[in-house]
Amino acid sequence: MNIILFNENEVNKPLPIRDSRAIHLLKVLKMKEGDSFDVGLVDGPRGKASIVKINRCNIQLQCVFQEEVPQLPQVTMLIGLPRPPSARRILRDITSQGVQELHFVVTDKGEESYLNSRLWSKDEYLRLVREGAEQAFCTRQPTVSIHDSLLSCLDQLEQQADRLVLDNYEASLSLGEYRPCQSYTILAVGAERGWSATERDLFRQHHFLFANMGERVLRTETACIAGLAIVLEKHRALSTRQ
Amino acid sequence: MNIILFNENEVNKPLPIRDSRAIHLLKVLKMKEGDSFDVGLVDGPRGKASIVKINRCNIQLQCVFQEEVPQLPQVTMLIGLPRPPSARRILRDITSQGVQELHFVVTDKGEESYLNSRLWSKDEYLRLVREGAEQAFCTRQPTVSIHDSLLSCLDQLEQQADRLVLDNYEASLSLGEYRPCQSYTILAVGAERGWSATERDLFRQHHFLFANMGERVLRTETACIAGLAIVLEKHRALSTRQ
Repeated sequence: MNIILFNENEVNKPLPIRDSRAIHLLKVLKMKEGDSFDVGLVDGPRGKASIVKINRCNIQLQCVFQEEVPQLPQVTMLIGLPRPPSARRILRDITSQGVQELHFVVTDKGEESYLNSRLWSKDEYLRLVREGAEQAFCTRQPTVSIHDSLLSCLDQLEQQADRLVLDNYEASLSLGEYRPCQSYTILAVGAERGWSATERDLFRQHHFLFANMGERVLRTETACIAGLAIVLEKHRALSTRQ
Repeated sequence: MNIILFNENEVNKPLPIRDSRAIHLLKVLKMKEGDSFDVGLVDGPRGKASIVKINRCNIQLQCVFQEEVPQLPQVTMLIGLPRPPSARRILRDITSQGVQELHFVVTDKGEESYLNSRLWSKDEYLRLVREGAEQAFCTRQPTVSIHDSLLSCLDQLEQQADRLVLDNYEASLSLGEYRPCQSYTILAVGAERGWSATERDLFRQHHFLFANMGERVLRTETACIAGLAIVLEKHRALSTRQ
């Protein structure tokens, strides 16, 4: 955790001693009265907090926010709903890399039952996203949506965007050769058993280009991190040139 | 597991029913006599195996190897020794992406005690590397070495290679701008607390270029996967052009 995030309504109010952030400050970082640490306002600026007082019930903090945080990269990911352990890693790691939207989609070859995991209770997936932002020293977090089919997801995506889907079987492009045309990119990554023929047709109808990263078969979470890393580098190159 | 790997001395010998591969075939894939699956010879060709007979003690297989497997990408990774859970992910995921050598290094700001984990018993880390290769549908596996200091590792690296080290603080290059000069690349990624000043000096003396992937702070395992993905794309682009 490189920064600790607070919502606007929590700032400078006593932090309950059982809150996970209080536990982290006292048990992991072993902080005492007078110590200070990096703090952020969710979707707002970064700053410094100092510990004014610790008592049996709560911690009294004094926060000063002064540093604007850059916007998230203009990238959305669409991900075939994976097993809950993979989804946990994706939520945290992809958030740390930086995206604006995460769309999880139940795929034809996937398992709708994965949605029954307690991961998809608001408490857990939002906590993972927050951990990803805290890891990245960032206050901004992606939105997370879940869709029961690819079609319902495709209808909700940003219109003015480059659209890429990773596919080891039908790729016409190596992802490394991608050069952004629009300032926004949508990257789709399939789940364990890949896309069905119907889903491939849907992607084509929605103007997605099929890309790959070589012949090797990667787990969903590895493919998500690797694919996003390559797309983000293309965006950085673009913003450096401008 | 997309392919099941055997050593040369195991081929066409009865596979003990308690071997992890036998358990996978019978319990996970629910295979029966007459079924066949993808098989590979460690560091050799791929092929097909069929199940001739299953009895109480072992499985009798008939393997035919006919397909040559490409060499691994000419990339070596040097990684600051992370906590065992991170190291487990790295061993499996980085192997699935494809590298020739994995060097783990005890760093000045790291913890030598992580080496006491049972992960570093031969059984466990070799199993993870094998799982990474099986995931990637590949028979070739990287070598894994552990070094008690950066200096002792640097002396053992391939001489004719581009040398890059990821560092959020001292980078002069965005990793996306890297263009291979040599056909071989060494990529170094630090552990949780990063490199010490002494280690940075050592990297400079050994002709490493400092690179980053933007400002965001990533966990070691995320940085390893992301950094390697970008370097591998550069290698693919090179081999396409040739």
